[in-house]
Amino acid sequence: MTEFELIRRYFHRPQIAHPLGVGDDCALLAAPAAHEQLAVSADMLIEGRHFLSDTDVRLLGRKALAVNLSDLAACGARPAAFALSLALPHADAAWCAAFAQGLFEMADAHGCPLVGGDTTRGPTLTIAITVFGHVPIGQALLRSGARAGDEIWVSGTIGDARMALHALQRQHALPQPVLAHIRHRLENPEPRVALGQALRGVATAAVDVSDGLLADLGHILAASGGLGARIELSRTRALLQAVHHPHPLMAAIALERVDLCTLAGGDDYELCFTAAPEQAATIAQIARDCATPLTCIGRVEAEPGVRLVDEAGHLHAPQRFAGFDHFS
Amino acid sequence: MTEFELIRRYFHRPQIAHPLGVGDDCALLAAPAAHEQLAVSADMLIEGRHFLSDTDVRLLGRKALAVNLSDLAACGARPAAFALSLALPHADAAWCAAFAQGLFEMADAHGCPLVGGDTTRGPTLTIAITVFGHVPIGQALLRSGARAGDEIWVSGTIGDARMALHALQRQHALPQPVLAHIRHRLENPEPRVALGQALRGVATAAVDVSDGLLADLGHILAASGGLGARIELSRTRALLQAVHHPHPLMAAIALERVDLCTLAGGDDYELCFTAAPEQAATIAQIARDCATPLTCIGRVEAEPGVRLVDEAGHLHAPQRFAGFDHFS
Repeated sequence: MTEFELIRRYFHRPQIAHPLGVGDDCALLAAPAAHEQLAVSADMLIEGRHFLSDTDVRLLGRKALAVNLSDLAACGARPAAFALSLALPHADAAWCAAFAQGLFEMADAHGCPLVGGDTTRGPTLTIAITVFGHVPIGQALLRSGARAGDEIWVSGTIGDARMALHALQRQHALPQPVLAHIRHRLENPEPRVALGQALRGVATAAVDVSDGLLADLGHILAASGGLGARIELSRTRALLQAVHHPHPLMAAIALERVDLCTLAGGDDYELCFTAAPEQAATIAQIARDCATPLTCIGRVEAEPGVRLVDEAGHLHAPQRFAGFDHFS
Repeated sequence: MTEFELIRRYFHRPQIAHPLGVGDDCALLAAPAAHEQLAVSADMLIEGRHFLSDTDVRLLGRKALAVNLSDLAACGARPAAFALSLALPHADAAWCAAFAQGLFEMADAHGCPLVGGDTTRGPTLTIAITVFGHVPIGQALLRSGARAGDEIWVSGTIGDARMALHALQRQHALPQPVLAHIRHRLENPEPRVALGQALRGVATAAVDVSDGLLADLGHILAASGGLGARIELSRTRALLQAVHHPHPLMAAIALERVDLCTLAGGDDYELCFTAAPEQAATIAQIARDCATPLTCIGRVEAEPGVRLVDEAGHLHAPQRFAGFDHFS
């Protein structure tokens, strides 16, 4: 199969929304409306680093786009289109078919067509996606708008992706039924696209949780002028799905491990956002409208640093939850 | 050095044109003007496949963006911004500094700021760039507009990139002074951005020469309804800079090798375009305005297939000049 046959067979689809799709030197996209800006984000996934070699390929296709859509969600942008650059060790028809199936499932679910890209041979399977969205001018959710006194919220559940990864890599034991229950959080995350748009004008700052909750919250606190935060561990510990599993071993799971997964896990693709306390009712309504649980986990404070407080009121050191860094 | 320090140190720059630069979940870009469309192109460069491991890193930074700007040029679009995803085997400060220098030289020369991206560790040095441009609605140069009777034009010179690559890989001998004279064509191509914009409304179809002249011209002929072409070898052979070098060995270079480099070389990043014969005077003026030689190398014909004709009027088979395919 040649490069051109591969592109044609698996990545060409009838293009409705855009005048030109995959195939010319450039894709041509309709500009956003006059009152809108363009939001752009790029993410690269590398085999063995961002996903395991035996990952289900259809789910990989879904996740490759999902992690990019999650960045649009964190900005409150509406998905518009994406470009895909793919390096493959060899032209594998079955792989391409499964990958394209998952990719286009996710694209169709969010009205975000593939409009161009590049396919090449390379020694390491590498997926680089750039996604474009539209957002009304001045309404994008930024990291820089948090204020002391704001409440800190997290969507959905967090920590299970890292717990599943540790189990799959045999770094930590996990009962098989629990792994079966939570591994979709690692392999099939759902970007919070509708939630992000609903939070425009409500959240003061937002970020998606990809490097770990404390690390990503730290980006908000730093960008907002060096603020701090108080985090209630009773709230964050409850956000791990695994602890709610009825398997008897889960009742004895170490809190240390729960904290590590929830506070420093990463790969969650939930939204962490801040909002004034008087927005709580609006946020509760948004949670219902988006069918997405939203949990207040703490509060922004003027004093820099993060204070982790357990149910007994004891302070815990946040240093070991610094989050994932690709070069650390 | 952490991922965030690396990004901050080498890839953060004051952003003037755009409200948000590298650092938030998304970059926010001003929309194109009301009468414009957005042109998008993505290209991925992989060490050992698209560039040699001992390539000058500053020049690599230039070329990584240049090959993407070349796609915008082929559409007649004006560069607006780009996103960069970079996989590095390790966080090498000297490498990043040199790469960023070259990258920003090219970006500044074309008014095309870096607005976002991703930096990660990966086993293979991989550079994925997505570039955005603006083009008036309906005026983009496409591959599909060629008509029988159009003249076929090529900008600049072609074939030397492949000849230099062969010499550097020791596949073919080349006198050192000749290699020194032409290797910039491989390592430091100049995208024809101004030319592409000048050709709007003049060229009927355009493509950039990245896979080889006949392969890329073939995209125009196929997209334009299955047309054919007659190519004058006397014209294409003269487009190789190396044959004009005074080194005595170059007088004896095999025509077979000249044809292979010029017709199937690739990596040229020149524009190949078609235009009605009555546009010849306008094209001559554009060549002067853009300080870029433009050479008519043949003519589009209704009969499918490519006919290579030498000075004696003999036909040569085009099959062995099919061009570069990453999976062939």
